[in-house]
Amino acid sequence: MSENASQERTVVFVSDGTGITAETLGHSVLSQFEGIRFKQIRIPFIDSEVKAISARQKINDIAKYDGQKPIVFSTLVNSVINNVVKQADGVFMDLFLTFVEPMEKELNIKSTHRIGRSHTIADNEQYKNRIEAINYTLAHDDGQTHKDLQAADVILVGVSRSGKTPTSLYLAMQYGIKAANYPLIPEDFERGELPTALPPFKDKIFGLSISPERLSEIRNERRPGSKYASLENCRQEIKAAEFMMRREGISWLSSTSKSIEEISTTILQQLNLGSPIY
Amino acid sequence: MSENASQERTVVFVSDGTGITAETLGHSVLSQFEGIRFKQIRIPFIDSEVKAISARQKINDIAKYDGQKPIVFSTLVNSVINNVVKQADGVFMDLFLTFVEPMEKELNIKSTHRIGRSHTIADNEQYKNRIEAINYTLAHDDGQTHKDLQAADVILVGVSRSGKTPTSLYLAMQYGIKAANYPLIPEDFERGELPTALPPFKDKIFGLSISPERLSEIRNERRPGSKYASLENCRQEIKAAEFMMRREGISWLSSTSKSIEEISTTILQQLNLGSPIY
Repeated sequence: MSENASQERTVVFVSDGTGITAETLGHSVLSQFEGIRFKQIRIPFIDSEVKAISARQKINDIAKYDGQKPIVFSTLVNSVINNVVKQADGVFMDLFLTFVEPMEKELNIKSTHRIGRSHTIADNEQYKNRIEAINYTLAHDDGQTHKDLQAADVILVGVSRSGKTPTSLYLAMQYGIKAANYPLIPEDFERGELPTALPPFKDKIFGLSISPERLSEIRNERRPGSKYASLENCRQEIKAAEFMMRREGISWLSSTSKSIEEISTTILQQLNLGSPIY
Repeated sequence: MSENASQERTVVFVSDGTGITAETLGHSVLSQFEGIRFKQIRIPFIDSEVKAISARQKINDIAKYDGQKPIVFSTLVNSVINNVVKQADGVFMDLFLTFVEPMEKELNIKSTHRIGRSHTIADNEQYKNRIEAINYTLAHDDGQTHKDLQAADVILVGVSRSGKTPTSLYLAMQYGIKAANYPLIPEDFERGELPTALPPFKDKIFGLSISPERLSEIRNERRPGSKYASLENCRQEIKAAEFMMRREGISWLSSTSKSIEEISTTILQQLNLGSPIY
């Protein structure tokens, strides 16, 4: 840690919509600075001049209280609103203007400057698909049902607690992908076969593995001291699962040190799935 | 639709990590342009010079195939990698350099230029909290258990199909918030009381309502022609639910025309919850 270790800075995300775009980019930028504690404040739904004035006041209050200007990541589309907020005592990172203007030039077309186009249900059909995918994924969690597997975009397999459920939900929520998941259990290893419903759908199966040490750690949180959680048992299950996936020609990855975002991105890539959702 | 209605343009998201930041900002910018069909291609995990060369080739191939430069949203942190990719035949929107350099000036500190800091499990504790929140939320979906409600950050209530489950999951996944949810059912309305487990936790209850017309539509997809889905029944349930929430002093919002992102942001705001996750 450097002498900046105790440095603090307030960061504000201001948007005419949810502010999720501003937050996502902001976090990405902030993650490049170490030794600074960023205090974060979200000011969403600034979609009128009156709200813009109150946002400006809020930023000014922060600057006064902190004794330094907060850093403001903003995605304000409307120029009247943007001009009001920008008078505030902050260091502005304007995500919108920075990229929309060069895009207008490149595409030779004016942008709509319509408020709240991101993260809304403006595109009803796509949003509906996403909600449907979430419902499908919940209904097909943990091998609950064999019904309608032909509708799945992907079927995740792996031993209990290898990360199938959160990954499936992320795929559904972020990309509108229908993700079923099936545990590989000792009974499957004894039979030496995939769960009975799965063979017809082998081309959309993807496997998750994990290091036995990490698996044992996770299982011990749930059932401390159980045979289920023991390192020896985890070793055996992982070995049997990887043997089965290799034999069946199923692609897999190790989730040990990967986030659900990283796992999901890899699955999309490998199965050639999912153009991103607008 | 204008004469641009048939215009097409390829958009590439290139990143040393998942590319989620590039996609999120890219979508936000693209949503401002109407009448153009954007074909999207994701090039994630470009974390070496060899991969950078292959990414550059991919972009060049697209430019050649399309007969025009693709628009490239990039979040490449490493300057060697970035310089290789940037030689490609694309129109570059460099999310990283654009904002990191002014931030360095403002903070008077050098950025780390470390690859893949966003959407990783680098910060193990926070990632663990998020996975725990997802598990908690799944276990407490639809009033499944009354156990451990004191650990909930928020408890959503509302009639069946008002949007509680996807909203709860989004809160858990995106913000690491433990969200339980309880359906308000005709039995509750007859008793004139909230589900029995809930009164001690009133300060963290938030309600979802919905227009009877939309609710009937959604329920009819599930159980076509049922009494459950009939407009008359939906009207009665919504009326009783809103009456109960008003009487109990529970804040609520209408989910009718809101996305789960918009609902979640409003809940965070109202309950003063959740500083965003890095």
